[in-house]
Amino acid sequence: MRPVVSFYLSYLLCLCLGLACLACVCYWNSHWRGGFAWDGSGLQFNWHPVLMVGGLVVLYGYGAVLYRVPLTWGQNKLPWKLLHAGMMLLSLVLAVLGLVAVFDFHNAKSIPNVYSLHSWIGICTTALFAMQWAVGMAGFLLPCSPVSLRKLLKPVHVWMGASILSLSVISCISGINEKLFFVLKESSSGTQPYAALPPEALFGNSLGVLLVVFVLVVLKILSNVDWQRPDSRPEDMAYRPLIQEDN
Amino acid sequence: MRPVVSFYLSYLLCLCLGLACLACVCYWNSHWRGGFAWDGSGLQFNWHPVLMVGGLVVLYGYGAVLYRVPLTWGQNKLPWKLLHAGMMLLSLVLAVLGLVAVFDFHNAKSIPNVYSLHSWIGICTTALFAMQWAVGMAGFLLPCSPVSLRKLLKPVHVWMGASILSLSVISCISGINEKLFFVLKESSSGTQPYAALPPEALFGNSLGVLLVVFVLVVLKILSNVDWQRPDSRPEDMAYRPLIQEDN
Repeated sequence: MRPVVSFYLSYLLCLCLGLACLACVCYWNSHWRGGFAWDGSGLQFNWHPVLMVGGLVVLYGYGAVLYRVPLTWGQNKLPWKLLHAGMMLLSLVLAVLGLVAVFDFHNAKSIPNVYSLHSWIGICTTALFAMQWAVGMAGFLLPCSPVSLRKLLKPVHVWMGASILSLSVISCISGINEKLFFVLKESSSGTQPYAALPPEALFGNSLGVLLVVFVLVVLKILSNVDWQRPDSRPEDMAYRPLIQEDN
Repeated sequence: MRPVVSFYLSYLLCLCLGLACLACVCYWNSHWRGGFAWDGSGLQFNWHPVLMVGGLVVLYGYGAVLYRVPLTWGQNKLPWKLLHAGMMLLSLVLAVLGLVAVFDFHNAKSIPNVYSLHSWIGICTTALFAMQWAVGMAGFLLPCSPVSLRKLLKPVHVWMGASILSLSVISCISGINEKLFFVLKESSSGTQPYAALPPEALFGNSLGVLLVVFVLVVLKILSNVDWQRPDSRPEDMAYRPLIQEDN
Protein backbone atom coordinates (compact mmCIF):
# COMPACT_ATOMS: atom_id res chain seq x y z
CA MET A 1 0.00 0.00 0.00
CA ARG A 2 1.28 3.49 -0.82
CA PRO A 3 2.41 5.47 2.26
CA VAL A 4 -0.17 8.22 1.55
CA VAL A 5 -3.05 5.72 1.41
CA SER A 6 -1.92 3.86 4.53
CA PHE A 7 -1.43 7.20 6.32
CA TYR A 8 -4.94 8.42 5.51
CA LEU A 9 -6.43 5.10 6.67
CA SER A 10 -4.54 5.41 9.99
CA TYR A 11 -5.47 9.09 10.23
CA LEU A 12 -9.15 8.25 9.69
CA LEU A 13 -8.89 5.61 12.41
CA CYS A 14 -7.24 8.19 14.70
CA LEU A 15 -9.98 10.78 14.03
CA CYS A 16 -12.78 8.23 14.58
CA LEU A 17 -11.21 6.86 17.79
CA GLY A 18 -10.77 10.40 19.16
CA LEU A 19 -14.40 11.28 18.42
CA ALA A 20 -15.52 7.99 19.97
CA CYS A 21 -13.50 8.78 23.17
CA LEU A 22 -15.10 12.23 23.36
CA ALA A 23 -18.61 10.88 22.74
CA CYS A 24 -18.15 8.13 25.35
CA VAL A 25 -16.82 10.43 28.10
CA CYS A 26 -19.72 12.86 27.48
CA TYR A 27 -22.27 10.03 27.48
CA TRP A 28 -20.84 8.51 30.66
CA ASN A 29 -21.09 11.78 32.56
CA SER A 30 -24.47 12.84 31.22
CA HIS A 31 -26.19 9.45 31.34
CA TRP A 32 -24.79 7.96 34.56
CA ARG A 33 -23.31 10.90 36.47
CA GLY A 34 -26.23 13.37 36.17
CA GLY A 35 -24.90 15.79 33.56
CA PHE A 36 -23.07 19.09 33.84
CA ALA A 37 -23.14 22.34 35.79
CA TRP A 38 -20.59 24.91 37.04
CA ASP A 39 -21.73 25.30 40.64
CA GLY A 40 -19.18 23.46 42.81
CA SER A 41 -21.39 20.34 42.91
CA GLY A 42 -20.68 16.85 41.58
CA LEU A 43 -22.11 18.10 38.29
CA GLN A 44 -19.16 20.52 38.02
CA PHE A 45 -16.79 17.63 38.71
CA ASN A 46 -18.29 15.91 35.64
CA TRP A 47 -16.60 18.52 33.44
CA HIS A 48 -13.22 17.23 34.70
CA PRO A 49 -13.10 13.93 32.75
CA VAL A 50 -14.76 15.50 29.70
CA LEU A 51 -12.28 18.42 29.53
CA MET A 52 -9.25 16.24 30.27
CA VAL A 53 -10.16 13.57 27.70
CA GLY A 54 -11.29 16.20 25.16
CA GLY A 55 -8.35 18.55 25.69
CA LEU A 56 -5.35 16.67 27.02
CA VAL A 57 -5.87 13.51 24.96
CA VAL A 58 -8.13 13.91 21.89
CA LEU A 59 -7.40 17.51 20.78
CA TYR A 60 -3.74 17.09 21.82
CA GLY A 61 -3.51 13.90 19.75
CA TYR A 62 -5.11 15.58 16.73
CA GLY A 63 -2.71 18.54 17.08
CA ALA A 64 0.30 16.22 17.43
CA VAL A 65 -0.31 14.36 14.15
CA LEU A 66 -1.16 17.52 12.17
CA TYR A 67 2.24 17.80 10.45
CA ARG A 68 1.96 14.18 9.30
CA VAL A 69 -0.96 15.05 6.99
CA PRO A 70 0.64 15.15 3.48
CA LEU A 71 -1.61 18.12 2.66
CA THR A 72 0.54 20.21 5.07
CA TRP A 73 3.78 19.40 3.21
CA GLY A 74 3.35 22.28 0.76
CA GLN A 75 5.52 25.36 0.44
CA ASN A 76 4.20 27.46 3.30
CA LYS A 77 4.47 25.76 6.67
CA LEU A 78 3.61 28.82 8.77
CA PRO A 79 -0.22 28.49 8.70
CA TRP A 80 0.12 24.85 9.82
CA LYS A 81 2.52 25.84 12.59
CA LEU A 82 -0.02 28.43 13.75
CA LEU A 83 -2.81 25.84 13.58
CA HIS A 84 -0.65 23.34 15.55
CA ALA A 85 0.12 25.99 18.19
CA GLY A 86 -3.55 27.07 18.26
CA MET A 87 -4.86 23.51 18.71
CA MET A 88 -2.32 22.88 21.46
CA LEU A 89 -3.24 26.16 23.20
CA LEU A 90 -6.92 25.23 23.10
CA SER A 91 -6.01 21.78 24.43
CA LEU A 92 -4.06 23.40 27.28
CA VAL A 93 -6.91 25.81 28.09
CA LEU A 94 -9.39 22.90 28.20
CA ALA A 95 -7.03 20.96 30.49
CA VAL A 96 -6.65 23.94 32.84
CA LEU A 97 -10.46 24.37 32.90
CA GLY A 98 -10.67 20.64 33.68
CA LEU A 99 -8.37 21.22 36.67
CA VAL A 100 -10.42 24.25 37.78
CA ALA A 101 -13.57 22.07 37.68
CA VAL A 102 -12.09 19.54 40.09
CA PHE A 103 -10.45 22.14 42.38
CA ASP A 104 -13.77 24.06 42.66
CA PHE A 105 -15.61 20.83 43.46
CA HIS A 106 -13.03 19.78 46.07
CA ASN A 107 -12.97 23.23 47.68
CA ALA A 108 -16.79 23.39 47.85
CA LYS A 109 -16.85 19.96 49.56
CA SER A 110 -13.71 20.61 51.68
CA ILE A 111 -11.94 17.67 50.03
CA PRO A 112 -8.12 18.13 49.95
CA ASN A 113 -6.57 18.77 46.54
CA VAL A 114 -3.68 16.95 44.81
CA TYR A 115 -3.13 14.02 47.14
CA SER A 116 -3.66 10.94 44.95
CA LEU A 117 -1.08 9.52 42.55
CA HIS A 118 -3.61 10.24 39.77
CA SER A 119 -3.58 13.93 40.68
CA TRP A 120 0.22 14.07 41.01
CA ILE A 121 0.68 12.62 37.51
CA GLY A 122 -2.13 14.77 36.10
CA ILE A 123 -0.72 18.01 37.56
CA CYS A 124 2.81 17.17 36.34
CA THR A 125 1.40 16.40 32.86
CA THR A 126 -0.42 19.75 32.62
CA ALA A 127 2.60 21.67 33.96
CA LEU A 128 4.93 19.95 31.47
CA PHE A 129 2.41 20.68 28.70
CA ALA A 130 2.31 24.39 29.63
CA MET A 131 6.13 24.52 29.59
CA GLN A 132 6.24 22.63 26.28
CA TRP A 133 3.76 25.06 24.73
CA ALA A 134 5.66 28.14 25.96
CA VAL A 135 9.06 26.81 24.88
CA GLY A 136 7.61 25.67 21.53
CA MET A 137 6.00 29.06 20.95
CA ALA A 138 9.21 30.93 21.80
CA GLY A 139 11.50 28.53 19.94
CA PHE A 140 9.54 27.83 16.75
CA LEU A 141 7.23 30.81 16.23
CA LEU A 142 9.11 33.88 17.46
CA PRO A 143 11.02 35.24 14.44
CA CYS A 144 13.96 36.22 16.67
CA SER A 145 14.74 32.63 17.83
CA PRO A 146 18.03 31.50 16.25
CA VAL A 147 18.18 28.57 13.81
CA SER A 148 20.71 26.77 16.01
CA LEU A 149 18.22 26.86 18.91
CA ARG A 150 15.42 25.46 16.71
CA LYS A 151 17.70 22.65 15.53
CA LEU A 152 18.56 21.80 19.14
CA LEU A 153 14.97 22.14 20.33
CA LYS A 154 13.15 20.11 17.71
CA PRO A 155 14.00 16.54 18.83
CA VAL A 156 13.37 17.56 22.47
CA HIS A 157 9.99 19.08 21.46
CA VAL A 158 8.99 15.94 19.54
CA TRP A 159 10.09 13.66 22.38
CA MET A 160 8.38 15.75 25.07
CA GLY A 161 5.23 15.88 22.96
CA ALA A 162 4.95 12.08 22.84
CA SER A 163 5.86 11.78 26.55
CA ILE A 164 3.16 14.28 27.57
CA LEU A 165 0.55 12.30 25.60
CA SER A 166 1.68 9.11 27.38
CA LEU A 167 1.43 10.89 30.74
CA SER A 168 -2.05 12.15 29.79
CA VAL A 169 -3.35 8.66 29.15
CA ILE A 170 -1.75 7.39 32.39
CA SER A 171 -3.63 10.18 34.23
CA CYS A 172 -6.90 9.37 32.45
CA ILE A 173 -6.78 5.63 33.11
CA SER A 174 -5.93 6.06 36.81
CA GLY A 175 -8.66 8.72 37.06
CA ILE A 176 -11.40 6.63 35.41
CA ASN A 177 -10.41 3.63 37.55
CA GLU A 178 -10.51 5.77 40.74
CA LYS A 179 -13.84 7.39 39.80
CA LEU A 180 -15.53 4.04 39.13
CA PHE A 181 -14.37 2.76 42.55
CA PHE A 182 -15.70 5.98 44.17
CA VAL A 183 -19.18 5.92 42.64
CA LEU A 184 -19.91 2.22 42.15
CA LYS A 185 -20.53 1.04 45.70
CA GLU A 186 -23.32 -1.22 46.92
CA SER A 187 -26.06 0.97 48.40
CA SER A 188 -29.66 0.82 49.56
CA SER A 189 -30.69 2.76 46.44
CA GLY A 190 -29.81 -0.30 44.37
CA THR A 191 -26.40 0.82 43.06
CA GLN A 192 -24.28 -2.20 42.15
CA PRO A 193 -20.60 -2.28 43.17
CA TYR A 194 -17.81 -1.98 40.57
CA ALA A 195 -16.96 -5.65 41.16
CA ALA A 196 -20.41 -6.69 39.87
CA LEU A 197 -19.57 -4.95 36.55
CA PRO A 198 -22.84 -3.01 36.13
CA PRO A 199 -23.36 -1.26 32.73
CA GLU A 200 -21.58 1.92 33.92
CA ALA A 201 -18.49 -0.10 34.90
CA LEU A 202 -18.39 -1.87 31.54
CA PHE A 203 -18.84 1.46 29.76
CA GLY A 204 -16.17 3.25 31.83
CA ASN A 205 -13.69 0.39 31.36
CA SER A 206 -14.38 0.40 27.61
CA LEU A 207 -13.76 4.16 27.51
CA GLY A 208 -10.39 3.52 29.16
CA VAL A 209 -9.46 0.85 26.60
CA LEU A 210 -10.59 3.17 23.76
CA LEU A 211 -8.35 5.97 25.14
CA VAL A 212 -5.34 3.65 25.27
CA VAL A 213 -5.97 2.47 21.68
CA PHE A 214 -6.35 6.10 20.50
CA VAL A 215 -3.05 7.11 22.10
CA LEU A 216 -1.25 4.06 20.67
CA VAL A 217 -2.55 4.92 17.18
CA VAL A 218 -1.36 8.56 17.59
CA LEU A 219 2.08 7.42 18.79
CA LYS A 220 2.27 4.90 15.92
CA ILE A 221 1.48 7.65 13.40
CA LEU A 222 4.13 9.89 14.99
CA SER A 223 6.77 7.15 14.95
CA ASN A 224 6.37 6.11 11.30
CA VAL A 225 9.32 7.65 9.41
CA ASP A 226 7.52 7.28 6.06
CA TRP A 227 4.76 9.56 7.29
CA GLN A 228 7.06 12.34 8.53
CA ARG A 229 7.50 15.54 6.54
CA PRO A 230 10.24 14.72 4.00
CA ASP A 231 12.50 17.43 5.52
CA SER A 232 12.12 15.97 9.03
CA ARG A 233 13.05 12.33 8.34
CA PRO A 234 16.12 10.97 10.11
CA GLU A 235 17.80 9.81 6.90
CA ASP A 236 17.72 13.40 5.72
CA MET A 237 21.08 14.14 7.28
CA ALA A 238 21.26 17.62 5.74
CA TYR A 239 18.87 18.97 8.36
CA ARG A 240 16.90 21.93 7.11
CA PRO A 241 15.85 24.04 10.08
CA LEU A 242 12.24 25.19 10.22
CA ILE A 243 13.07 28.85 9.92
CA GLN A 244 14.72 28.31 6.55
CA GLU A 245 11.87 26.30 5.11
CA ASP A 246 9.34 28.95 4.38
CA ASN A 247 8.84 31.42 7.18
CA MET B 1 29.40 14.53 24.35
CA ARG B 2 30.29 11.34 22.42
CA PRO B 3 27.26 9.07 21.81
CA VAL B 4 28.91 6.19 23.74
CA VAL B 5 29.51 8.36 26.83
CA SER B 6 26.02 9.88 26.77
CA PHE B 7 24.56 6.39 26.25
CA TYR B 8 26.37 4.92 29.27
CA LEU B 9 25.28 7.87 31.45
CA SER B 10 21.64 7.30 30.40
CA TYR B 11 22.05 3.54 30.84
CA LEU B 12 23.44 4.05 34.34
CA LEU B 13 20.46 6.29 35.15
CA CYS B 14 18.13 3.61 33.76
CA LEU B 15 19.77 0.87 35.86
CA CYS B 16 19.68 3.00 39.04
CA LEU B 17 16.04 4.06 38.51
CA GLY B 18 15.01 0.44 37.92
CA LEU B 19 16.74 -0.71 41.10
CA ALA B 20 15.18 2.20 43.01
CA CYS B 21 11.69 1.19 41.75
CA LEU B 22 12.28 -2.41 42.84
CA ALA B 23 13.64 -1.37 46.25
CA CYS B 24 10.71 1.01 46.82
CA VAL B 25 7.99 -1.48 45.89
CA CYS B 26 9.60 -4.10 48.18
CA TYR B 27 9.95 -1.60 51.04
CA TRP B 28 6.35 -0.37 50.65
CA ASN B 29 4.95 -3.89 50.88
CA SER B 30 7.22 -5.11 53.66
CA HIS B 31 7.19 -1.97 55.83
CA TRP B 32 3.55 -0.79 55.47
CA ARG B 33 1.64 -3.82 54.09
CA GLY B 34 2.98 -6.48 56.47
CA GLY B 35 5.41 -8.39 54.24
CA PHE B 36 5.01 -11.46 52.08
CA ALA B 37 3.52 -14.96 52.17
CA TRP B 38 1.92 -17.37 49.67
CA ASP B 39 -1.21 -18.39 51.58
CA GLY B 40 -4.13 -16.58 49.90
CA SER B 41 -3.98 -13.79 52.48
CA GLY B 42 -3.27 -10.08 51.99
CA LEU B 43 0.40 -11.02 52.36
CA GLN B 44 0.15 -13.05 49.15
CA PHE B 45 -1.45 -10.05 47.45
CA ASN B 46 1.70 -8.08 48.37
CA TRP B 47 3.65 -10.16 45.84
CA HIS B 48 1.43 -8.71 43.10
CA PRO B 49 2.92 -5.16 42.97
CA VAL B 50 6.46 -6.48 43.59
CA LEU B 51 6.28 -9.06 40.78
CA MET B 52 4.55 -6.70 38.36
CA VAL B 53 6.97 -3.82 38.98
CA GLY B 54 9.98 -6.16 39.06
CA GLY B 55 8.95 -8.25 36.05
CA LEU B 56 6.71 -6.25 33.74
CA VAL B 57 8.49 -2.91 34.20
CA VAL B 58 12.07 -3.12 35.55
CA LEU B 59 13.32 -6.43 34.08
CA TYR B 60 11.33 -5.78 30.88
CA GLY B 61 12.92 -2.32 30.60
CA TYR B 62 16.42 -3.73 31.18
CA GLY B 63 15.76 -6.42 28.54
CA ALA B 64 14.40 -3.86 26.06
CA VAL B 65 17.52 -1.65 26.10
CA LEU B 66 19.96 -4.57 25.98
CA TYR B 67 20.74 -4.23 22.26
CA ARG B 68 21.55 -0.54 22.77
CA VAL B 69 24.63 -1.40 24.87
CA PRO B 70 27.59 -0.83 22.47
CA LEU B 71 29.27 -3.90 24.00
CA THR B 72 26.63 -6.04 22.23
CA TRP B 73 27.46 -4.66 18.79
CA GLY B 74 30.26 -7.19 18.22
CA GLN B 75 30.33 -9.94 15.64
CA ASN B 76 28.12 -12.52 17.27
CA LYS B 77 24.64 -11.28 18.09
CA LEU B 78 23.19 -14.69 18.98
CA PRO B 79 24.23 -14.78 22.70
CA TRP B 80 22.66 -11.32 23.15
CA LYS B 81 19.49 -12.41 21.40
CA LEU B 82 19.32 -15.39 23.74
CA LEU B 83 19.93 -13.13 26.76
CA HIS B 84 17.22 -10.71 25.51
CA ALA B 85 14.76 -13.60 25.05
CA GLY B 86 15.76 -15.07 28.44
CA MET B 87 15.30 -11.78 30.30
CA MET B 88 11.93 -11.26 28.63
CA LEU B 89 10.86 -14.83 29.47
CA LEU B 90 11.82 -14.30 33.12
CA SER B 91 9.93 -11.00 33.06
CA LEU B 92 6.86 -12.78 31.65
CA VAL B 93 7.08 -15.57 34.24
CA LEU B 94 7.30 -12.98 37.06
CA ALA B 95 4.28 -11.13 35.62
CA VAL B 96 2.25 -14.36 35.42
CA LEU B 97 3.23 -15.19 39.02
CA GLY B 98 2.12 -11.65 39.94
CA LEU B 99 -1.28 -12.39 38.38
CA VAL B 100 -1.49 -15.74 40.18
CA ALA B 101 -0.80 -13.91 43.48
CA VAL B 102 -3.78 -11.60 43.01
CA PHE B 103 -6.12 -14.32 41.63
CA ASP B 104 -5.33 -16.60 44.61
CA PHE B 105 -5.96 -13.73 47.04
CA HIS B 106 -9.25 -12.78 45.33
CA ASN B 107 -10.43 -16.39 45.18
CA ALA B 108 -9.59 -16.99 48.87
CA LYS B 109 -11.59 -13.86 49.82
CA SER B 110 -14.39 -14.47 47.24
CA ILE B 111 -13.57 -11.16 45.52
CA PRO B 112 -14.43 -11.18 41.79
CA ASN B 113 -11.48 -11.15 39.39
CA VAL B 114 -10.77 -8.82 36.45
CA TYR B 115 -13.48 -6.20 36.88
CA SER B 116 -11.55 -2.92 37.30
CA LEU B 117 -10.07 -0.92 34.43
CA HIS B 118 -6.67 -1.52 36.09
CA SER B 119 -7.15 -5.27 35.77
CA TRP B 120 -8.46 -5.05 32.19
CA ILE B 121 -5.37 -3.09 31.08
CA GLY B 122 -3.05 -5.30 33.14
CA ILE B 123 -4.45 -8.54 31.70
CA CYS B 124 -4.30 -7.17 28.14
CA THR B 125 -0.67 -6.08 28.76
CA THR B 126 0.38 -9.53 29.97
CA ALA B 127 -1.49 -11.29 27.13
CA LEU B 128 0.13 -9.00 24.52
CA PHE B 129 3.51 -9.60 26.16
CA ALA B 130 3.06 -13.40 25.96
CA MET B 131 2.12 -13.10 22.27
CA GLN B 132 5.05 -10.76 21.63
CA TRP B 133 7.45 -13.21 23.27
CA ALA B 134 6.10 -16.22 21.34
CA VAL B 135 6.12 -14.39 17.99
CA GLY B 136 9.59 -12.94 18.72
CA MET B 137 10.93 -16.38 19.64
CA ALA B 138 9.47 -18.01 16.51
CA GLY B 139 10.41 -15.14 14.21
CA PHE B 140 13.90 -14.21 15.40
CA LEU B 141 15.32 -17.32 17.06
CA LEU B 142 13.97 -20.31 15.13
CA PRO B 143 16.52 -21.02 12.39
CA CYS B 144 13.71 -21.97 9.96
CA SER B 145 12.04 -18.53 10.00
CA PRO B 146 12.56 -16.84 6.61
CA VAL B 147 14.54 -13.59 6.26
CA SER B 148 11.55 -11.87 4.63
CA LEU B 149 9.45 -12.63 7.73
CA ARG B 150 12.14 -11.22 10.06
CA LYS B 151 12.36 -8.06 7.98
CA LEU B 152 8.59 -7.63 8.17
CA LEU B 153 8.44 -8.53 11.84
CA LYS B 154 11.20 -6.34 13.24
CA PRO B 155 9.51 -2.90 13.21
CA VAL B 156 6.31 -4.48 14.56
CA HIS B 157 8.31 -6.20 17.34
CA VAL B 158 10.09 -2.94 18.27
CA TRP B 159 6.82 -0.97 18.24
CA MET B 160 4.90 -3.61 20.23
CA GLY B 161 7.78 -3.77 22.73
CA ALA B 162 7.55 -0.04 23.51
CA SER B 163 3.74 -0.17 23.57
CA ILE B 164 3.73 -3.07 26.05
CA LEU B 165 6.07 -1.12 28.36
CA SER B 166 3.74 1.89 28.15
CA LEU B 167 0.76 -0.34 28.96
CA SER B 168 2.71 -1.83 31.89
CA VAL B 169 3.29 1.55 33.48
CA ILE B 170 -0.38 2.53 32.90
CA SER B 171 -1.34 -0.67 34.75
CA CYS B 172 1.12 0.01 37.59
CA ILE B 173 0.04 3.63 38.15
CA SER B 174 -3.67 2.78 38.17
CA GLY B 175 -2.93 -0.17 40.48
CA ILE B 176 -0.85 1.82 43.01
CA ASN B 177 -3.49 4.58 43.00
CA GLU B 178 -6.27 2.02 43.57
CA LYS B 179 -4.35 0.19 46.31
CA LEU B 180 -3.62 3.42 48.23
CA PHE B 181 -7.35 4.32 48.15
CA PHE B 182 -8.21 0.79 49.36
CA VAL B 183 -5.85 0.67 52.32
CA LEU B 184 -5.59 4.30 53.43
CA LYS B 185 -8.97 4.90 55.06
CA GLU B 186 -9.65 6.64 58.34
CA SER B 187 -10.13 3.97 61.01
CA SER B 188 -10.34 3.56 64.76
CA SER B 189 -6.86 2.00 64.71
CA GLY B 190 -5.44 5.41 63.77
CA THR B 191 -4.93 4.86 60.06
CA GLN B 192 -4.92 8.17 58.24
CA PRO B 193 -6.88 8.51 54.97
CA TYR B 194 -5.09 8.88 51.63
CA ALA B 195 -6.27 12.52 51.45
CA ALA B 196 -4.23 13.35 54.60
CA LEU B 197 -1.09 12.18 52.75
CA PRO B 198 0.38 9.97 55.49
CA PRO B 199 3.96 8.68 54.92
CA GLU B 200 2.70 5.57 53.07
CA ALA B 201 0.74 7.76 50.63
CA LEU B 202 3.76 9.98 49.95
CA PHE B 203 5.94 6.90 49.49
CA GLY B 204 3.45 5.14 47.18
CA ASN B 205 2.96 8.28 45.07
CA SER B 206 6.74 8.72 44.83
CA LEU B 207 7.08 5.09 43.69
CA GLY B 208 4.54 5.87 40.95
CA VAL B 209 6.49 8.94 39.82
CA LEU B 210 9.74 6.93 39.88
CA LEU B 211 8.16 4.22 37.68
CA VAL B 212 7.00 6.81 35.14
CA VAL B 213 10.48 8.40 35.04
CA PHE B 214 12.11 4.95 34.61
CA VAL B 215 9.84 4.08 31.68
CA LEU B 216 10.39 7.48 30.04
CA VAL B 217 14.17 6.98 30.32
CA VAL B 218 13.88 3.48 28.76
CA LEU B 219 11.70 4.80 25.92
CA LYS B 220 14.12 7.69 25.39
CA ILE B 221 17.05 5.26 25.14
CA LEU B 222 15.07 3.11 22.67
CA SER B 223 14.12 6.10 20.51
CA ASN B 224 17.62 7.58 20.14
CA VAL B 225 18.80 6.66 16.64
CA ASP B 226 22.47 7.30 17.60
CA TRP B 227 22.25 4.57 20.22
CA GLN B 228 20.76 1.93 17.96
CA ARG B 229 22.89 -0.90 16.57
CA PRO B 230 24.52 0.54 13.44
CA ASP B 231 22.75 -2.07 11.28
CA SER B 232 19.34 -1.15 12.71
CA ARG B 233 19.38 2.60 12.16
CA PRO B 234 16.74 4.05 9.82
CA GLU B 235 19.28 5.84 7.63
CA ASP B 236 20.83 2.44 6.92
CA MET B 237 18.54 1.88 3.96
CA ALA B 238 20.36 -1.29 2.92
CA TYR B 239 18.58 -3.29 5.62
CA ARG B 240 20.58 -6.29 6.76
CA PRO B 241 18.22 -8.87 8.19
CA LEU B 242 19.15 -10.42 11.52
CA ILE B 243 19.63 -13.88 10.11
CA GLN B 244 22.39 -12.65 7.80
CA GLU B 245 24.23 -10.77 10.50
CA ASP B 246 25.85 -13.56 12.39
CA ASN B 247 23.53 -16.46 13.11
